[in-house]
Amino acid sequence: MTMLGKTPPRGFAQSEFEARTEKLQGLMTASGIDAAFFTTEPEFRYFSGFKSQFWESPTRPWFLVVPATGRPIAVVPEIGVAGFEETWIEDVRSWPSPRPEDDGISLLGQTLAEVSKGSFKLGGMLGPETHLRMPASNFEKLKHALSQHELVDVSELVRKLRSVKSAAEVAKIRFACEVTSAGFNYLKDNLKVGMTEREACKAMHLEMLRLGADSCPYLISASGPDGYDNIIMGPTDRRLNEGDVLIIDTGANFDGYFSDFDRNFAFGDVPPATHTAYDAVYRSTEAGLGVAAPGRSTGDVWRAMWDVLEAAGALGNDVGRMGHGLGMQLTEWPSHVEGGDVVLEPGMVLTLEPGMTYAPGKMMVHEENILITDNGCEMLHQRAWPRLPVITS
Amino acid sequence: MTMLGKTPPRGFAQSEFEARTEKLQGLMTASGIDAAFFTTEPEFRYFSGFKSQFWESPTRPWFLVVPATGRPIAVVPEIGVAGFEETWIEDVRSWPSPRPEDDGISLLGQTLAEVSKGSFKLGGMLGPETHLRMPASNFEKLKHALSQHELVDVSELVRKLRSVKSAAEVAKIRFACEVTSAGFNYLKDNLKVGMTEREACKAMHLEMLRLGADSCPYLISASGPDGYDNIIMGPTDRRLNEGDVLIIDTGANFDGYFSDFDRNFAFGDVPPATHTAYDAVYRSTEAGLGVAAPGRSTGDVWRAMWDVLEAAGALGNDVGRMGHGLGMQLTEWPSHVEGGDVVLEPGMVLTLEPGMTYAPGKMMVHEENILITDNGCEMLHQRAWPRLPVITS
Repeated sequence: MTMLGKTPPRGFAQSEFEARTEKLQGLMTASGIDAAFFTTEPEFRYFSGFKSQFWESPTRPWFLVVPATGRPIAVVPEIGVAGFEETWIEDVRSWPSPRPEDDGISLLGQTLAEVSKGSFKLGGMLGPETHLRMPASNFEKLKHALSQHELVDVSELVRKLRSVKSAAEVAKIRFACEVTSAGFNYLKDNLKVGMTEREACKAMHLEMLRLGADSCPYLISASGPDGYDNIIMGPTDRRLNEGDVLIIDTGANFDGYFSDFDRNFAFGDVPPATHTAYDAVYRSTEAGLGVAAPGRSTGDVWRAMWDVLEAAGALGNDVGRMGHGLGMQLTEWPSHVEGGDVVLEPGMVLTLEPGMTYAPGKMMVHEENILITDNGCEMLHQRAWPRLPVITS
Repeated sequence: MTMLGKTPPRGFAQSEFEARTEKLQGLMTASGIDAAFFTTEPEFRYFSGFKSQFWESPTRPWFLVVPATGRPIAVVPEIGVAGFEETWIEDVRSWPSPRPEDDGISLLGQTLAEVSKGSFKLGGMLGPETHLRMPASNFEKLKHALSQHELVDVSELVRKLRSVKSAAEVAKIRFACEVTSAGFNYLKDNLKVGMTEREACKAMHLEMLRLGADSCPYLISASGPDGYDNIIMGPTDRRLNEGDVLIIDTGANFDGYFSDFDRNFAFGDVPPATHTAYDAVYRSTEAGLGVAAPGRSTGDVWRAMWDVLEAAGALGNDVGRMGHGLGMQLTEWPSHVEGGDVVLEPGMVLTLEPGMTYAPGKMMVHEENILITDNGCEMLHQRAWPRLPVITS
């Protein structure tokens, strides 16, 4: 049985929220922005410390306003007010929600108007990889109510901030990764020919929860003779037969932080081409590990990994990238793409995810989670097995 | 040990997707709408049958276009194309995503323009309890590209459609409810003084997964001497002591359909006022069960439940409603609110959730899940215990 490190402490020191907020406020000031507002769970939690599973309910909108100075202001449904006692937020404004005719939108407008009397420039999350978690008709109302104000995108500022993790954040991600790694080891010892994909995933799910994951919001599998044709569906009730390859890709969560990596398994004899493809993605990951370091770009990482796959005869890659940021979300900015120009910095947590179609309808994808350190990178969990594990029983 | 019914079949017959789509198309035609588009997981899945955990990744947008006639058209990232082989969707259009400079938005615009050449009227989810899962800046681009078209809200049409469940949908919800009920029974037999909230929730989580839940995206708890002050935070590492009341509220998921109900537990002696409050919410639920029937309104249900709580001395209710729709989402339209005018119909699945503050900082909330039948309603799981269960060991 894999030995896990000690469970990290829950939550964060108040100084962490102060530092995050001050950094954003510094970037806002440099851009002449009076205040920013947030509607989505990760940003709300990042600046406020408010952590609740209640975001699963789509009914009510939640808003966080970050003024140019001072603490954030929560503009939230009444049902949520008590939850702020444990946070560093002092100014909590609420309305009786659900109230479809005005579900907090006038209160948000008033709050923004109150804190934006300088440049009349407001920031919101409007750019790539974001959405506004509020009715589109209410966003129109908000813009109308704030027609004296200019609304600009702050998603670039926020993603830059969030992409560099603190030591406390890394500790949570590392623990999620260790649990995931132990889950895969458990699976390697317990997979059997004749199990279904769903049974395999359920066994791993239970084991990761037992080992200390809070939840496992992402746990997919795909399988087929010699390989699989996708990495985002499943698990299905398909039985794992001799000659199959199975991939399981999972994101376990500890205290609001994710792991995100996969493992491949062969069932009995699979063709040499499958083992060769596994070897290629393994070496591709090695190349990524060798390159990922401060000062290198996401394009450099992509290039190092793709060169190996191309030399191995890759027919293509439908994933669209070969890894990404990781933290409060299963996938975060930036992406390892061809020509990517995001420069890596110490504290970034990233996935390396080389993948290729090695024969028509057959993919092979590896994924590992790393931390960019002062002079290179560090694996956050046990490295994948150098050879494709073969389940024989 | 509770006996569970047989696990329902996975997925749906193609006829179900045809019926859903035709119903929407009928409503669209009545409103002169050429085509509607969807960006959020429940609607995408409801009309297409595409079910993937990959929505957990916020990076890529996904679009489904429902024309006035014929099958829906998927406009999706390349990584997702293979997943449509198992659906009834034939027209799948894709782009290599992530591509921040044009992440599918021009392809969506072209597709909508192609199928909207009649009224030039397009439908989107713009109203209460919805959001657009796409960058706000891209929605602006889309509106600009389709400036010849009128965009109208179809959320009222869709929620009306989705609120009435088919027999196959009810079977999935019922199974999720049975698993949840068995989980609460397990907890009643295994809770002990001195456990933490987190240990209690983890035990129930594992049991529900063992019993057949696919996942449990919502599992919260709150506790305190004589009562609790919120129902959306936790679990915490607080130890359950003599004199505490614990609430656990959970939404387990089977094949994409939720349960959503709670149970309360006392640890040793709690004051008579706490037992009285439990009795009041129990009787309030009874009143709701007596009223919920076709032809009655959400306001009627609210009134029947609130009258009991008011007579019992309720100081207020911070939840904002006393129950809601349930199905593909933990909480769906409609809400049981004062004056609510949504008329109940056979096939609606609803929660009854009477709750009150019975002393300063002390809440008592019950929740049950019901199906509206031809002449009344039916519990979808075992009813709460008539008296507050007391954990003595």
